[in-house]
Amino acid sequence: MKALTGMIMQSGSSPSTANIKYLCGFDAPDPFFYLHTSKGGHLLVSTMEKGRALRQSRSGTGVYTASDLGLSGKKVFDKVEQIKALMQHAGVRSLKVPSDFPAGLFQLLLGSGIGTSILKGDPCPDRAVKKSEEITKLKGCQKAAAMAMESAINMLASARVSGDGHLRVGREVLTSEHVRRRIQAVLLEMGFTASQTIVAGGEQATDPHERGHGPLKAGEAIILDIFPQSETTGYWGDLTRTVCRGKAPTGLKKLYRAVKAAQAAALSTVAPGISAQQVHAAVEALFEERGYETGTVGGKHVGFIHGTGHGVGLDIHEMPRVSSASTAILEPGHIITIEPGLYYPGLGGVRIEDTIVVTEKGWKYLAACPRKFELF
Amino acid sequence: MKALTGMIMQSGSSPSTANIKYLCGFDAPDPFFYLHTSKGGHLLVSTMEKGRALRQSRSGTGVYTASDLGLSGKKVFDKVEQIKALMQHAGVRSLKVPSDFPAGLFQLLLGSGIGTSILKGDPCPDRAVKKSEEITKLKGCQKAAAMAMESAINMLASARVSGDGHLRVGREVLTSEHVRRRIQAVLLEMGFTASQTIVAGGEQATDPHERGHGPLKAGEAIILDIFPQSETTGYWGDLTRTVCRGKAPTGLKKLYRAVKAAQAAALSTVAPGISAQQVHAAVEALFEERGYETGTVGGKHVGFIHGTGHGVGLDIHEMPRVSSASTAILEPGHIITIEPGLYYPGLGGVRIEDTIVVTEKGWKYLAACPRKFELF
Repeated sequence: MKALTGMIMQSGSSPSTANIKYLCGFDAPDPFFYLHTSKGGHLLVSTMEKGRALRQSRSGTGVYTASDLGLSGKKVFDKVEQIKALMQHAGVRSLKVPSDFPAGLFQLLLGSGIGTSILKGDPCPDRAVKKSEEITKLKGCQKAAAMAMESAINMLASARVSGDGHLRVGREVLTSEHVRRRIQAVLLEMGFTASQTIVAGGEQATDPHERGHGPLKAGEAIILDIFPQSETTGYWGDLTRTVCRGKAPTGLKKLYRAVKAAQAAALSTVAPGISAQQVHAAVEALFEERGYETGTVGGKHVGFIHGTGHGVGLDIHEMPRVSSASTAILEPGHIITIEPGLYYPGLGGVRIEDTIVVTEKGWKYLAACPRKFELF
Repeated sequence: MKALTGMIMQSGSSPSTANIKYLCGFDAPDPFFYLHTSKGGHLLVSTMEKGRALRQSRSGTGVYTASDLGLSGKKVFDKVEQIKALMQHAGVRSLKVPSDFPAGLFQLLLGSGIGTSILKGDPCPDRAVKKSEEITKLKGCQKAAAMAMESAINMLASARVSGDGHLRVGREVLTSEHVRRRIQAVLLEMGFTASQTIVAGGEQATDPHERGHGPLKAGEAIILDIFPQSETTGYWGDLTRTVCRGKAPTGLKKLYRAVKAAQAAALSTVAPGISAQQVHAAVEALFEERGYETGTVGGKHVGFIHGTGHGVGLDIHEMPRVSSASTAILEPGHIITIEPGLYYPGLGGVRIEDTIVVTEKGWKYLAACPRKFELF
């Protein structure tokens, strides 16, 4: 009989936390172990978590505390002893660990004579291709993002423009913070959290991860990037629109049109069997054709300075990536963002992002959301 | 000249993400590297993050992209090459990694001939003792938690009790979800997120990490555990109250009094030089004295099934721990929770938690919050 090998994972780092949730249905605020074998899964949790782990984990998952496994005294808190006991219980003789497993514990396992090797590649490659119930959950997340976007855009459209160019509601200057709170409040009502929502206008929008702060102005590009996580399912949505209150300067309007065309170009390439690199290349080609260069100007990186997209699921950024370095080939059930962007200090930043599902015939939006740049 | 050793950390796991933020001021949604040496810190970030890293990192921190360090082609995306280039730039000849560093990358570093060892102990022991500006930030977090608690308790106190024992606002049954949304909405207004807030009544409250769902009833213990994170500073608050709408059964009232007395007993031991174990032992002694046993009854873990407390800072759970396994000795500037609890299915769950700062003379609450069990 061949000795059974198990994969031991610890929650608390990415992607292991999401992998464990995917494989056995359980997550918790503090680190815990999950041993996955061809015969089933085994959770080792604290005394306090046992009841919840029994309720939330998928059927067939064994749930144990250290004392259930016969540990006592100081051994209860010793991670190597915990893993040894779990292995014995599961009939496992050697271990694999995912690459994000903690190095300190990996070395202790080796030092204690347990045959342990690091898994090459993705411990959970199935996650990239979503099952139909996952697609349903992800549609719900994307719809929530679209509803929050609608509310935010209505807020910007209905703001008045004062003499100094600031957007105002009544007398009060409308800020990134106001719009972000509106987005978060709408999402909260629907059971979603979205703590890092981006509402960035003007120069701030030229930095893709700047969350945005302070007064919003007319005639500037304002990037709204909303990525809510469902409090019940743990899945994410991801949606970006760029708008301008009032008339946009000609250069900015051209920039917007280029990004919109780049997104359309990327989407037109998406189909099963197509490489993610090819989708990214469609964006690069469009920008090159229109003369938008990417590079370093005055020490700042400008142009198309990020990838075209990423998978979305139990992690906000997961497989497959859609970038120049990606080796992924698109498959039905892949859920990816398509989010080209251009960033030029002095002019502005524009990003347009939708989340789509790759289908047998091509692709579909997870949720509809209008694209409108100038708001009057 | 002695060759310089640096500590390389990758964001994305706990506690490294918070350690990096503590040491250099920067964090980001995707993993990045931070090399810490006795001569200063060095960040290696994506092109897209560079501007933000320059603005947000502490002065004296070097900020580089892979191409700034001379990498090109495929090497730009190769983590070992990135770390090698960063080491060369910083004049570092060998590496230490924290124990939560990813095992896969640790093995690749060793395989590429870079002298790399795992740091024994905490890479950032200073984090446990808070500086005065940190204490100010943490007070703000705890005050926000107290304001949200007040709002939630008012909601419960003002609900009417219908004939079936349910709490109602107008005709609608008041649920855990309603109260949680109220808490989150109050926190959102103040710039805090609190996605895992616990509002758990009756049997649900006997599981300390159950978030709570469905109708709330009169005459049952309802645990409210609020732990907001500031969107601006990244610091956390942590506060728990247990309440009962209407008259509580005698046994439940006794249970509440025991937990309240246990918290007082623990607090009375807190002072510089006292061991965290001693604080925990004060809770255990009080519960034993009152006849509340901890153990397994019908396969369920009941009684005092968690530690007495934990440090709070840039992580919600950090050093020092206050438990039977803790080796910490309390020092001025430690910020810890004191949160005894008792959980008995059939009777209910009670937890009372405050976050305090250890001072030269003893300790102080970070924020005031009344304790009242029965709400009429």
